[in-house]
Amino acid sequence: MTTVDQSVSGPARLAEAGEGISAEELGLAARNHGMPLEALRYDVTPAGLHYLLIHYDIPDTDGATHVLDVDGLVGTPLRLDLAALRERPRVTRRVTLECAGNGRALLEPRPVSQPWLVEAVGTAEWTGTPLAPLLRDAGVGEGAVDVVFTGADHGIERGVEQDYQRALPVAEALRDEPLLAYEMNGAPLPPQHGAPLRLIVPGWYGMAHVKWLRRITIVDRAFDGFQNSVAYRLRQRPDDPGVPVTRIEPRALVRPPGFPDFMSRVRVLRPGPVVLDGRAWSGHAPVRRVEVTTDGGATWAEAALGPAGDDFAWRRWEFPWTATPGRHTVSARATDASGRTQPDRPPWNRGGFANNLVQRVEVAVTAAD
Amino acid sequence: MTTVDQSVSGPARLAEAGEGISAEELGLAARNHGMPLEALRYDVTPAGLHYLLIHYDIPDTDGATHVLDVDGLVGTPLRLDLAALRERPRVTRRVTLECAGNGRALLEPRPVSQPWLVEAVGTAEWTGTPLAPLLRDAGVGEGAVDVVFTGADHGIERGVEQDYQRALPVAEALRDEPLLAYEMNGAPLPPQHGAPLRLIVPGWYGMAHVKWLRRITIVDRAFDGFQNSVAYRLRQRPDDPGVPVTRIEPRALVRPPGFPDFMSRVRVLRPGPVVLDGRAWSGHAPVRRVEVTTDGGATWAEAALGPAGDDFAWRRWEFPWTATPGRHTVSARATDASGRTQPDRPPWNRGGFANNLVQRVEVAVTAAD
Repeated sequence: MTTVDQSVSGPARLAEAGEGISAEELGLAARNHGMPLEALRYDVTPAGLHYLLIHYDIPDTDGATHVLDVDGLVGTPLRLDLAALRERPRVTRRVTLECAGNGRALLEPRPVSQPWLVEAVGTAEWTGTPLAPLLRDAGVGEGAVDVVFTGADHGIERGVEQDYQRALPVAEALRDEPLLAYEMNGAPLPPQHGAPLRLIVPGWYGMAHVKWLRRITIVDRAFDGFQNSVAYRLRQRPDDPGVPVTRIEPRALVRPPGFPDFMSRVRVLRPGPVVLDGRAWSGHAPVRRVEVTTDGGATWAEAALGPAGDDFAWRRWEFPWTATPGRHTVSARATDASGRTQPDRPPWNRGGFANNLVQRVEVAVTAAD
Repeated sequence: MTTVDQSVSGPARLAEAGEGISAEELGLAARNHGMPLEALRYDVTPAGLHYLLIHYDIPDTDGATHVLDVDGLVGTPLRLDLAALRERPRVTRRVTLECAGNGRALLEPRPVSQPWLVEAVGTAEWTGTPLAPLLRDAGVGEGAVDVVFTGADHGIERGVEQDYQRALPVAEALRDEPLLAYEMNGAPLPPQHGAPLRLIVPGWYGMAHVKWLRRITIVDRAFDGFQNSVAYRLRQRPDDPGVPVTRIEPRALVRPPGFPDFMSRVRVLRPGPVVLDGRAWSGHAPVRRVEVTTDGGATWAEAALGPAGDDFAWRRWEFPWTATPGRHTVSARATDASGRTQPDRPPWNRGGFANNLVQRVEVAVTAAD
């Protein structure tokens, strides 16, 4: 373990009241990126527009030599190269991924980390082989508790040097949905999305979808690695053990109508009829209702839902509106089949996770001609 | 012309002393993105890692119906669809693109706009048809001064509603290098890079490479559109007419060695021999020399240059170093065949353009084991 001082790797902190975005936060924002919201027009997000959060560096992997090891509490350890994985059963799933920290930069006080507004989302078609049959082929041993996934990305975080590792409970890893993906939108995974192999866990926030996957290890206790036991927990105080971040809370986004101002991103719209639309998703259960407000939340009305698709992919909605001159704040609110919905006030925790506050889109409707 | 108030579209401003990155700047940083610096490892930047600056929204173009009009001061106006453009002579050029505002967020005082650090760069292989023969086929009229390129992207900026438009002087448009590109890295242009057609002007900053290109108009006077006459000018005072931003100033970047801290992005490196490397480019003339410092600029030594490639693509360099425990600041400095080099102090102007200040990479070398 490398020892470095806090000028290299400091503890988590909250921004001071009124503190602008710091140089460190800007450093993360300049390399990671959200999905430009006009890309809500696409059922499937083009790869270069999908949100991206990379903890360390994109590693220099080679698909021709890359191998996946399956070991730990298994009957038969396995080693598979990409060719062997491609020979296994092949599935394609359309899945919406969202960063657990989406919305963080809007919190008060603001946890200092990747400063997302609302754009940390995307929907792709992931092709690969289902995880559960592979684990069964290796043989899940008696007493298995967690399945640990290790990526090829290496760095230091809050003083802890690490390969990126995340564990899933065995029962989650053995569900039908998780897959080991080697294609995104019909093409080999691009470097920034985990080439040549990543885990996809439909319904879970992005931190679970380990990129550049090189090892799967079954363990007989709750995994205590950094990303499970320190990061990605919902806690109110630094000494609070917290609750793990797991599935995606429901959220709806509005595709911003009209056209933008370059700097303010306020939307400019001509008066008259317009069909508002957007997408809504939840990792807990299918979306059942989307409501829209065009008066900043004073009144809400039901939007029409598009066809239901894959359970863990977003669903289109639309809402006809007659835009009148002046300023308007437009929002949408999703409710899923489990009854979960979006709050009026953001859920706050020290990591800024799982915050599904309703989006606010500022629209300036011009005077009639 | 739509009239909106300054809360929608305000004038350019400079940040106050000590002012953190504002919500508006963060809004731009969340949707645009730089190239993660580890991607300096690639000769050709994968499409999703190439920097991206989009003034308004990515427009909803359709390659099957998209047409390019060539009009204005021409003998024969032309209208070409993508099939017609693909039947014309086909060339592929490897070109480094850099945003004119790269480095802006490091300036003091800081112009409030897209807050780039140093990552607003990328190198791609652009395939399309040369521009000059097409202009000659249309017939460039007597008295032609500027060639105006119009994109399908529409927005408002500093109170001016506009389609994105940029002009080149006729002599520049008739050089051999500019092309009308319909492929990037061997695939159709992705939406965010101008699908289905964009202009590429090798050697010029990014603002010249008009995306979603739909019209080329030859005019008999200096084009006075917003992006030429208001934005993208080097000026010291608001009332200064300024000098146009044109070609890319020389710059070298270091591929950050070792591995990063998640939050600070400081690099952690083991002591011992390491080969530093990176890329260098200039839009004025080929790079002739790269120097490296590992002591924050106290001493510089010459790096070895990789093979010369395309004149307007970056060139690899490398430099062997023996890393010793402690903190180091690593930089590289490019000089081109015209004698231009990088300054120790950033050139300042109100737009934060063409600022090729030397990059500083902070490295923490660990104690010997």
